[in-house]
Formats: sequence, C-alpha cells, structure tokens
Amino acid sequence: MSTSASSPSPLVRDVLAGDVRAGARLMRDLDDRRAGALAALKELHPSTGRAYIVGITGNPGAGKSTVVDALIAHYRAAGERVGVVAVDPTSPFSGGAILGDRIRMQRHALDPDVFIRSLATRGHLGGLSRSTFDVVAVLDAMGYQRILVETVGVGQDEVDVMKAAHTSVVVTVPGLGDDIQAIKAGLLEIADVLCVNKADREGVDRTVRDLMHMLDLRGGERRDVEIVQTIAARGLADGSGLTELAAAIERHRAKAWRGDDGVAHARTRAAAQLTELVRALLADRVERGLAARGGLIEVAAAVVDGKEDPYTAAERIVADL
Amino acid sequence: MSTSASSPSPLVRDVLAGDVRAGARLMRDLDDRRAGALAALKELHPSTGRAYIVGITGNPGAGKSTVVDALIAHYRAAGERVGVVAVDPTSPFSGGAILGDRIRMQRHALDPDVFIRSLATRGHLGGLSRSTFDVVAVLDAMGYQRILVETVGVGQDEVDVMKAAHTSVVVTVPGLGDDIQAIKAGLLEIADVLCVNKADREGVDRTVRDLMHMLDLRGGERRDVEIVQTIAARGLADGSGLTELAAAIERHRAKAWRGDDGVAHARTRAAAQLTELVRALLADRVERGLAARGGLIEVAAAVVDGKEDPYTAAERIVADL
Repeated sequence: MSTSASSPSPLVRDVLAGDVRAGARLMRDLDDRRAGALAALKELHPSTGRAYIVGITGNPGAGKSTVVDALIAHYRAAGERVGVVAVDPTSPFSGGAILGDRIRMQRHALDPDVFIRSLATRGHLGGLSRSTFDVVAVLDAMGYQRILVETVGVGQDEVDVMKAAHTSVVVTVPGLGDDIQAIKAGLLEIADVLCVNKADREGVDRTVRDLMHMLDLRGGERRDVEIVQTIAARGLADGSGLTELAAAIERHRAKAWRGDDGVAHARTRAAAQLTELVRALLADRVERGLAARGGLIEVAAAVVDGKEDPYTAAERIVADL
Repeated sequence: MSTSASSPSPLVRDVLAGDVRAGARLMRDLDDRRAGALAALKELHPSTGRAYIVGITGNPGAGKSTVVDALIAHYRAAGERVGVVAVDPTSPFSGGAILGDRIRMQRHALDPDVFIRSLATRGHLGGLSRSTFDVVAVLDAMGYQRILVETVGVGQDEVDVMKAAHTSVVVTVPGLGDDIQAIKAGLLEIADVLCVNKADREGVDRTVRDLMHMLDLRGGERRDVEIVQTIAARGLADGSGLTELAAAIERHRAKAWRGDDGVAHARTRAAAQLTELVRALLADRVERGLAARGGLIEVAAAVVDGKEDPYTAAERIVADL
C-alpha cells in the first residue's frame, strides 16, 4: 500500500534538517564531483525555491566585504538565517588569497544561523557559476532564508555568477580612476541596485551623477535602478545608508519577482543554471573521452609534431564522444 | 601527375599574402561562426607557428595600453610587423566601453605594418580564449612576426587568454590598496616577466620587494621571473625601462621556448587550444540540440513549472546530443 517514492538518503535528510556538517559535506562532494552528489541535489530540489538570493559585486577596493558584513547583521537582526557564498575567481592557483580579506566576516563565524562558504577555484572545464548555483541550492534546502553571493572582481565570471541571484547589487566608490570607472560599464548592465559606498569621500556627487548618466546612456528601456549611498564602516548607525540599501533590495524584489515579470525572471535564471549544468556535464564527458586516448597532452603532442591540425583533432575528440 | 592537394580558397590565398581586408574578414567570419571559417583555419595552419606571441595583462589602471603602445613602437623600430589583439572580457553587454581607452594606440592605426583587433564579447557558451587563439593564428598566417595580446582585467578570463601567449607580462604599479594587491596573486602565477610601471611613483621599492616576497612564497620550484621597472609615459627615452622590458621578454623566449622545455611548453599551449576548441564545438552542438526542442527557454519554463528538476533536464539535453 506504500507509494513508490524512495525514502531520502541519510545525507539528504540531514541537509533538510539544516545540519551544518551535512551541508558542508554535500558541498565538498559536489566540488569533488562525487557519485551521488548530483542525485542528492535532485532529491533536495523540491525543497528549494524559498530563499531570497542577493548578489553583491563591484570594483575591488569598494568595500564589498564590509557591505556584506553589515547586510548579514541586518538580516540576522530581522530574524532571518543567512547563507553566504564568497566567490573568488581571481585565485585559480593561489587557492584564495583574497579570502583572507574576508576575515571581517568572521565575527559572524560563531553565529549558528550564519553559514559562510568560499568558492575560490573552478574546474578547468567546469564553471564557478555552476558551483554557485549548486551551493545556493544546498543552502536553500538547509533553510537559510537569505543567501548573499559575494564576488571579488569585475570580470565575466562575476557577471555569470550573478545569474544565480534574484537581486544584484553593484558596489562602487567615489574617486576611482577612469580605467576602473570604465570597467563598471559591464557590471552596470547587471545592476538592480547600485551602492555607492564610502559616500563620505569627496566626489560622491559626481560619482552618482556619472552613474545616472551611464544608466541613461544604455540603449533600450531605461531600467529602474536605484542608487543608494552607504558608509559601511559606520555599521548600521544613523546615516550609514545600510537600512536604505536593504530597503532598496526589498523594493526590487517586490517589483521584479512578482507576477508575470517574476515568471520571466525565473525562466531566465533557470536557463542560466541549465546552461552551466550542461556545460559541466559535457566537460565531464570530454575528460573521460580524452582519458581513454592517453589524455589531452598526447593529442597535443601530435598537434605539436605536425601530425594533425588542432581543429581536426578537436573535431575528432567531439565525434568520439 | 598532379598531387591531390586542393588549391587554397581565394580568401586563404589573400590572408597568406598578408591582405588586411581578407584577414579582417576571416576574423569576422570566425566570430560569426560562419561555415568555411574553420576550414580556412585548417588551411592556414601549416603557415602558422612563426610569430612570437607576447601577452600583457595586469591591474586596471596599471598603464597596460601605454606599455603595449611603447612595445609596438619598439618592435616596429626593429623592423617587425606587429599584430595586436585587445581583449576586453569585462564588456559582455556594453560592447567594449574600455576600448575607448585604447585610443592611445591609434597613432599606430595608420601604420600598414600594425594590425589591431579588438575582442570585446564572448559567446554565451564559447570562450574568449578560443577567439584569441583563432585571431592569433590568422595574424600569424598573415606574416606578423610579433603578436601582442592585451587584456584589461584580472579575472580567470585573463588567465585563460594568456594561454595563447609564449611570454606573459603582468603589469602592475606601486601604491595600490591591499585589495588590488591581493588580486595579483592569481596573475602572479602566470607571469613570465613582471613589469612595475609608473616606477617614478613613491613606494616602488616596496612594491618590488612585495612581489619578490610573493614569488618566493609560491610552493614548488621558484620560477625565474624577472622584475622590470618602467615609466611608460616617457616613451622609449633613456630610463624608461622599456628597452629592458623588451630584453627581458627575449631572455624568457630564449630560455623557455628552446629545446626540451620548448617542446613541453608547446604541448601545454596546444592542450589549452584544444580544450577551447572542444568546448566551442560542444557549445555549438548544445545550441543546435536545444533549438530542436524549442530553445533553452522552453526547457527552463518546464523547470520553473516544476515539471522537471534542472539536473535531470540538463542530463536529458546532453543525452540527446
């Protein structure tokens, strides 16, 4: 008389119960592409979709970690359990040198309702964005209502990682050189909320004016992007602007993730996740295929020796899959 | 009595003759993934491998464009024809805002022996590194003896793009904040030559000391990375350090790309190119496979509606290939 649904594995059961060690183990298993890790994600999937995910990116030196730290305190004060994914795509070899900078977040390390996970490397064929989606799904299933995804830099990786977020906050500061100013152009396109941090610095009015100008310059519809000024170093004291930043995030949430717009946004986000998953599955296949013929370096040796051009060699590898 | 080798296509013949318009057209065709573009690269392949490729990356604001500009002048004075690939992974949507910054290179724009190509976007499944390899191959076949690959940022994309180079120069400046200093860690791993630009600034000795310290900290063999100080704004005047930078590049070339080391390096470089080519071919396949079932957004809609979890959907897409 029982239904055919199999009971969840012990690991999945513990993750769903919010067990921190079980969550960390599943994240490690996913990193290591262990058998069973993907099956666990499938089991967890029906229990996801409840967390609200806020992405924070922007210029190096803009004080992103301080903003994240203050937001954690804000959401904790509101009674939410908070997960943090700290993504560092610039440390493919160094193993996360920048994460030392995140020591500021450590005051939350002893809070059992804050879970911080760092992603500092990416597989040579897989993607950081895929890992971010995976970790967010685990945190979501564990019952963290608010998930913050923080990145360190300003490259395409950051843009990809932000696809996992519901609201993307881009943090900048007054007084950066033109070169760094220009880099904002790419990030500006993904900003739902713009945060001008260190707003007690000289030149803040000009920075805000420049940002409004850049927003106006963008072709097509003028997206309704709020610009908020913060002084994160002051914590949540009066005039720090952090309460206003949190409010701007909620306004975007109410506007973008309800009704028809919400469905469209959910589909775009699911499409980004599918792209990353497909890419990772294909990468696994390629690696297995190459291993079967002595590894990539053997094929590369044949190319260097002039036995085959690289384009034909690549086509052969793909045809063999 | 004739051999079976087919005669080259008119486009390939023109590219091999160094025709600038033919080269630009092939690069556009490769961007657009036009039929025939890959076949042209295959035809060109036997005529490549003669150029020496120098990659230049580093912190935003370090003056990379100025260094590249000075190196172009240096190589032109030595009688070499120079190709430049300016890669901007931070402008996926803005269409290359930063490239305006490259106006400094424009003094070379009228020199028929300098060819400048910008790469400002990357396909959603393809990669900038692959495009860089392609453009470098075309420039090589066109007869440019020296190819400079410049990137704007400090992310994983930059690291990947530098795989196309024979010698990677990482440019930095004195006096950056700790946050930006730390970002160097990833780039440091790929540096063959370190260029401390704006060396007339205060703090240059400390920066050089810090870099030597970071080089010593790296585990394993202490790679022999030269540190050169430049003041690129001074052009090639005495004391600018640019002649010394060019000499350091040649010393790396003589050391790393001869003999057994050279073979090992060539294989590593070919392996990186193969990886990018395979990735791009698979991306094409996935796109075609998805188009056959209404496109990615239809699959995403089924996921959002709860009809299928994203992991199973991704597996089905890959299985269908």
